[in-house]
Amino acid sequence: MRITALSGGIGGARFLRGLLQAVSPDDEVTVIGNTADDIWLFGLKISPDLDTIMYTLGGGIDDERGWGRDDEGWRAREELAAYGAQPTWFGLGDRDLATHVVRTQLLTAGQSLSEVTQALCRRWDVGVRLLPMSDDPIETHIVIDDPEVASGQRVVHFQEYWVGMRASVPVRGVVVVGQAQATPAPGVVEALLDADVVLVPPSNPIVSIGTITGVEGIGAALRTTQAPVVGVSPIIGRHAVRGMAEQLLAGLGIEISAAGVAAHHGARPAGILDGWLVEESDADQVPLIAELGIRARAVPLLMTDETTTCAMACAALDLAAGLRA
Amino acid sequence: MRITALSGGIGGARFLRGLLQAVSPDDEVTVIGNTADDIWLFGLKISPDLDTIMYTLGGGIDDERGWGRDDEGWRAREELAAYGAQPTWFGLGDRDLATHVVRTQLLTAGQSLSEVTQALCRRWDVGVRLLPMSDDPIETHIVIDDPEVASGQRVVHFQEYWVGMRASVPVRGVVVVGQAQATPAPGVVEALLDADVVLVPPSNPIVSIGTITGVEGIGAALRTTQAPVVGVSPIIGRHAVRGMAEQLLAGLGIEISAAGVAAHHGARPAGILDGWLVEESDADQVPLIAELGIRARAVPLLMTDETTTCAMACAALDLAAGLRA
Repeated sequence: MRITALSGGIGGARFLRGLLQAVSPDDEVTVIGNTADDIWLFGLKISPDLDTIMYTLGGGIDDERGWGRDDEGWRAREELAAYGAQPTWFGLGDRDLATHVVRTQLLTAGQSLSEVTQALCRRWDVGVRLLPMSDDPIETHIVIDDPEVASGQRVVHFQEYWVGMRASVPVRGVVVVGQAQATPAPGVVEALLDADVVLVPPSNPIVSIGTITGVEGIGAALRTTQAPVVGVSPIIGRHAVRGMAEQLLAGLGIEISAAGVAAHHGARPAGILDGWLVEESDADQVPLIAELGIRARAVPLLMTDETTTCAMACAALDLAAGLRA
Repeated sequence: MRITALSGGIGGARFLRGLLQAVSPDDEVTVIGNTADDIWLFGLKISPDLDTIMYTLGGGIDDERGWGRDDEGWRAREELAAYGAQPTWFGLGDRDLATHVVRTQLLTAGQSLSEVTQALCRRWDVGVRLLPMSDDPIETHIVIDDPEVASGQRVVHFQEYWVGMRASVPVRGVVVVGQAQATPAPGVVEALLDADVVLVPPSNPIVSIGTITGVEGIGAALRTTQAPVVGVSPIIGRHAVRGMAEQLLAGLGIEISAAGVAAHHGARPAGILDGWLVEESDADQVPLIAELGIRARAVPLLMTDETTTCAMACAALDLAAGLRA
């Protein structure tokens, strides 16, 4: 079976780790990773979501934080701060830094982000084919209030908003710089069109999934593939599983509920979903989601350990199998 | 008093640390640092001698090794090796790496090496004005035997010869790539012409001092400055204070003795020296050196601690004062 999954960072990566336990060795898993979180810092190209996926599936993640490397050190970061290098808010570990140095060196030598990602993944033995959504530069920026500028608003890079400001001020808008000009990376459209199942892990619908589906060609392939597309709600009850996302959704007028995010994604072919897993405790939303034209099922959704995550991935595959039948 | 010193890495930096204890607060010390050891690795610009000087005078050096940062970690290096990034022999510490990242970012932004060096030194409060010998790319390469290539010889970057191969094979020649096209960095010629004393610390005469004096304009300024030029022998008895240098000198036909190196540098104005400090135990060479036209004096030369190093710097200044009188 050919399974293709979209993925943001932490939530997507953990879901994928469970998925790899749920599939058989003959199954092929392709992951289309969000690159709109990417940022150049200190002259280095950083791809936070691709790295989180790579480290998580390759066994190098710091499981407690959910991002960055295990057995990490922070000496380089201390030194950068001592030199007055900006920004100081980015969590740049010494091991992680090496990944960015290698990536930057290969990109500077003329390789595409796809090629570089493949090269980095060889070391990590990730068990999936990891494709960046695009080789073109795409960067999410967040519009925030700023009474000190004439317009009353300014934009900050998503990383600055998320990591630097800890999503502490209201979101007035999202601008995905470069997205309109970007094309899907090699293999991305084929991975969606040739898939038996397409999965949308519990990732942020705006800045992780929305940035992927917003690339022309990727959204179209999702809408036209013969494969069923099944997603997993990142919202349980009235809260995002990872809290800061609520600020972002609220600021964009999206109802913070499993049904609210399903409505935002929409039913195919106008939207991107055929199926939607919601948490057991949100079972009352299943009929609401059905009214959208999306088949929903309520199952336990907390990814507390690999066994529960695997069961969740199985439920997604099972829902997809029912949709394909 | 205006004191200008040439300097390579470890030996030069330690001498300078002693010199700063020997001078008064009104004295101005300018250091012209060797940049021919510089190398691009992993897409980063590394200036080993400038860094050794900066870390030593700024209190950040690992005193036992003589190079690199104190409280250093090696996580990034482990990761680079895990990715298969070449070379693996370079001693790239996590703290040190941050210096190279900042340097590279500033160079890429269009600053000259002089400007970048000044910016880095602001953090370190080095107590001297540190100037790279040139803002132009200069890289020392070593000719070695290689029976596997048609010519029987190949060249390796000095860092590869010194660090990677630990100077373990004979030197057949030295090629200072870029030197013929290079010009002195801003302020270098003026620092020599306007100096009251010029000092040549106990650094390698070929790959540290020779690469500096080989830049057109620097050699000329050394030969014409009104200031006395006093050097310190890097050879004690028949051995280089830092052992690997012997290989390099032997390969180039330079006699391994205080007098041998004095003869290599030569007396001004054809050469670069007016005075030369040799170790007490080499006092018998003083008349030989005098025959070259260089005034020599025998004093204790081991830089075992800052007190002995300070005394050595005082002896150099004293010899210079005698030459100026």
